[in-house]
Amino acid sequence: MHVSPSSDATARDGRDCLGAALLARLETLAGFTDGGTALTRLYLSPAHRAAAGWLAGWMEQAGMTAHVDAAGNVVGRYEGATPGAPAVLLGSHIDSVRNAGKYDGTLGVVTAVAVVEELNRRGERLPFALEVIAFGDEEGVRFPVIFSGTRAVAGTFDPACLHAADADGVRLGEALAAFGGAPAALAADPATAARVARALAYLEVHIEQGPVLEQAGVPVGVVTAINGASRYTLGITGTAGHAGTVPMAGRRDALAAAADMVLAVERQALHTPGLVATVGRLDVLPGAVNVIAGGARLTLDVRSPDDRVRRDGAAAILDACAIIAQRRHVALSVDQTSETPAAPCTPALMDAFAAAAARAGVEPKRLPSGAGHDAMVFAGVLPMAMLFVRCRGGISHNPAESITAADAGLAAAVLLDTLRHLPVQALS
Amino acid sequence: MHVSPSSDATARDGRDCLGAALLARLETLAGFTDGGTALTRLYLSPAHRAAAGWLAGWMEQAGMTAHVDAAGNVVGRYEGATPGAPAVLLGSHIDSVRNAGKYDGTLGVVTAVAVVEELNRRGERLPFALEVIAFGDEEGVRFPVIFSGTRAVAGTFDPACLHAADADGVRLGEALAAFGGAPAALAADPATAARVARALAYLEVHIEQGPVLEQAGVPVGVVTAINGASRYTLGITGTAGHAGTVPMAGRRDALAAAADMVLAVERQALHTPGLVATVGRLDVLPGAVNVIAGGARLTLDVRSPDDRVRRDGAAAILDACAIIAQRRHVALSVDQTSETPAAPCTPALMDAFAAAAARAGVEPKRLPSGAGHDAMVFAGVLPMAMLFVRCRGGISHNPAESITAADAGLAAAVLLDTLRHLPVQALS
Repeated sequence: MHVSPSSDATARDGRDCLGAALLARLETLAGFTDGGTALTRLYLSPAHRAAAGWLAGWMEQAGMTAHVDAAGNVVGRYEGATPGAPAVLLGSHIDSVRNAGKYDGTLGVVTAVAVVEELNRRGERLPFALEVIAFGDEEGVRFPVIFSGTRAVAGTFDPACLHAADADGVRLGEALAAFGGAPAALAADPATAARVARALAYLEVHIEQGPVLEQAGVPVGVVTAINGASRYTLGITGTAGHAGTVPMAGRRDALAAAADMVLAVERQALHTPGLVATVGRLDVLPGAVNVIAGGARLTLDVRSPDDRVRRDGAAAILDACAIIAQRRHVALSVDQTSETPAAPCTPALMDAFAAAAARAGVEPKRLPSGAGHDAMVFAGVLPMAMLFVRCRGGISHNPAESITAADAGLAAAVLLDTLRHLPVQALS
Repeated sequence: MHVSPSSDATARDGRDCLGAALLARLETLAGFTDGGTALTRLYLSPAHRAAAGWLAGWMEQAGMTAHVDAAGNVVGRYEGATPGAPAVLLGSHIDSVRNAGKYDGTLGVVTAVAVVEELNRRGERLPFALEVIAFGDEEGVRFPVIFSGTRAVAGTFDPACLHAADADGVRLGEALAAFGGAPAALAADPATAARVARALAYLEVHIEQGPVLEQAGVPVGVVTAINGASRYTLGITGTAGHAGTVPMAGRRDALAAAADMVLAVERQALHTPGLVATVGRLDVLPGAVNVIAGGARLTLDVRSPDDRVRRDGAAAILDACAIIAQRRHVALSVDQTSETPAAPCTPALMDAFAAAAARAGVEPKRLPSGAGHDAMVFAGVLPMAMLFVRCRGGISHNPAESITAADAGLAAAVLLDTLRHLPVQALS
């Protein structure tokens, strides 16, 4: 298989063929689900465990040593020309949202393994080792925390997060122990810390999850920075009552208050350039047709490439919610569950990605990332960069997520060529 | 035990003592729950089955023959002076909402059994039989239908309701068969039809579930009519997407559309005298912090003592929701799950309740019922009436539901005295 980044027809055929193989691997990976026909693979779930086992097996076939680490990440290592040399980390995630697409996270993992597989097939060794890491908890869906696996590797995991509980009351630490991880080692695993301290860089391939590349007609893009994100859980307590007997004027309806807040979130973001804000989850208690809601709980996700815009926007939203609660005589609790500042990518690595894309005949577009990614956890820890792959309609977090084999193959070829030309001196 | 309705001190002591016994039975019944420490006893659930078994046992101890009928209702019969005589039906329900109070429905069942127990203790037979019926499905919470048990007895059950599915996809007919009922017999059970055709009247004791009696300082009230109710399920389909990458302006957020509709429902009812309207349940798909909602489903409950006000109000609400859906470019489906017209009570029975209350020294208040009740299913089928018992703060469908032993004992004494003085001639 010829996977050079060249723009000639033979190179393109080779990349298309590689892309088709990548899509087949992605189909296999999509079969590991907790959700029947829908793809749902939450952090530390049975499907996550099964996917991790399958992936470790493929890594070994591809010439790597592989293991599942203390945080449930799958880690595969391919030695460089000198055994024990510092590594370049290649990663993305294999956890998913509920009713997910097949490419979010998994594309970067599968592409990285395929690149190593190609090197191994050729008996080719680079001047550095490669470590492919399939992270868990990039989506932050199951527990009210996020990036647990990535932070464990980056050395920034907060042990308090082990107590975070999912909707069934299962704590992260318990779920991790049942998965086969090592909760006690998450915050300070000396072996991981030593490996990461010597690492040269972190590179990630990921679908764009937005419409920019498709609209520009470009298959791949170089990420300039990743948006910062703040997440909150808002709890509303009103008074439950009989839907037929409590007069409208005397009600303290928690769902009506929540509805008011959902619209306030939307209004604030619509009127603030560069801000997006979303209520994606709303639970109502007791949740029956003939009972006025006594309680409601909703999530709030606020993002911006500009940290000041994000912080000011979140503050304005929370102020509006507090006013609504006061006006409706309901109690409001606000818990911030995460805050991640915007993360700029490393210019030398951005240039390396762009040069490899240009050698493949593509003028890559440079763009910020609206979504958060594992890469942002490495900002300030390691040089890092991301290569975006266009996806159909910009649709993501949705079963309709779609990419082409040609674009996937191109991304793998660009990643391989980037590694072959990595400006190692500029990273030390 | 002296349970005469007289207003003297000895009679009051006797009623208080009976009331304390009634509250003890209600505590026992509240122990049958599907919900851990909360009281949740949905139609045909394991807790409903266990409660039915316990109740049948108590009915037999109280001198009745008892069985669970085709619809899962518990039916106890106490013969009159002449065996096989036509019966007066005494009923209410033992299913509950989620996180319910202990008195809604159960008070009427327990009071009726206690009245028979007292007659049996005295060896007293009335000129008619008594049939105590503990209905299921008065709340209509589990399946998108309501009054299944009551309609089966009244002869108005629609067999199409057997196909209604609960949130887990279990159909009513399947759940009933597993419960030990007889789905095939629900629409046309000749034995039940013959019994009900000969019955003289239907009487029900129930907590008010509203604030009127407490505010008037009166322990019991005579219901004049029961509000009509319309219920709907609204389904909203938007487009799921990534909370970080889809610009605000291009979103088709199903939860934001649902929030708009919740507020439209509230607005319409606030501005229409005699109308109450409630969204008690709202489910969001996929329901994750970082995913724009692609779907939402909500319930709508609209009530009024005036059928025209209810129908016009529901139509105005559905028009407003359709406009919201159009403006937000989401699809809207509307299913009407039930419609129950307002039900006037039978004047001769209202007067009989009022006269018995007056003999106990209470001037009962006459009031309409904002809530629906099993009694409304008998409107047009049998003469029917209801006795309301005041409850603290008017709170119901809530664990804080509360009544006093004195009021419960008074209600039982009034029911017994009403039966002893029933105007049988006026009912034939």
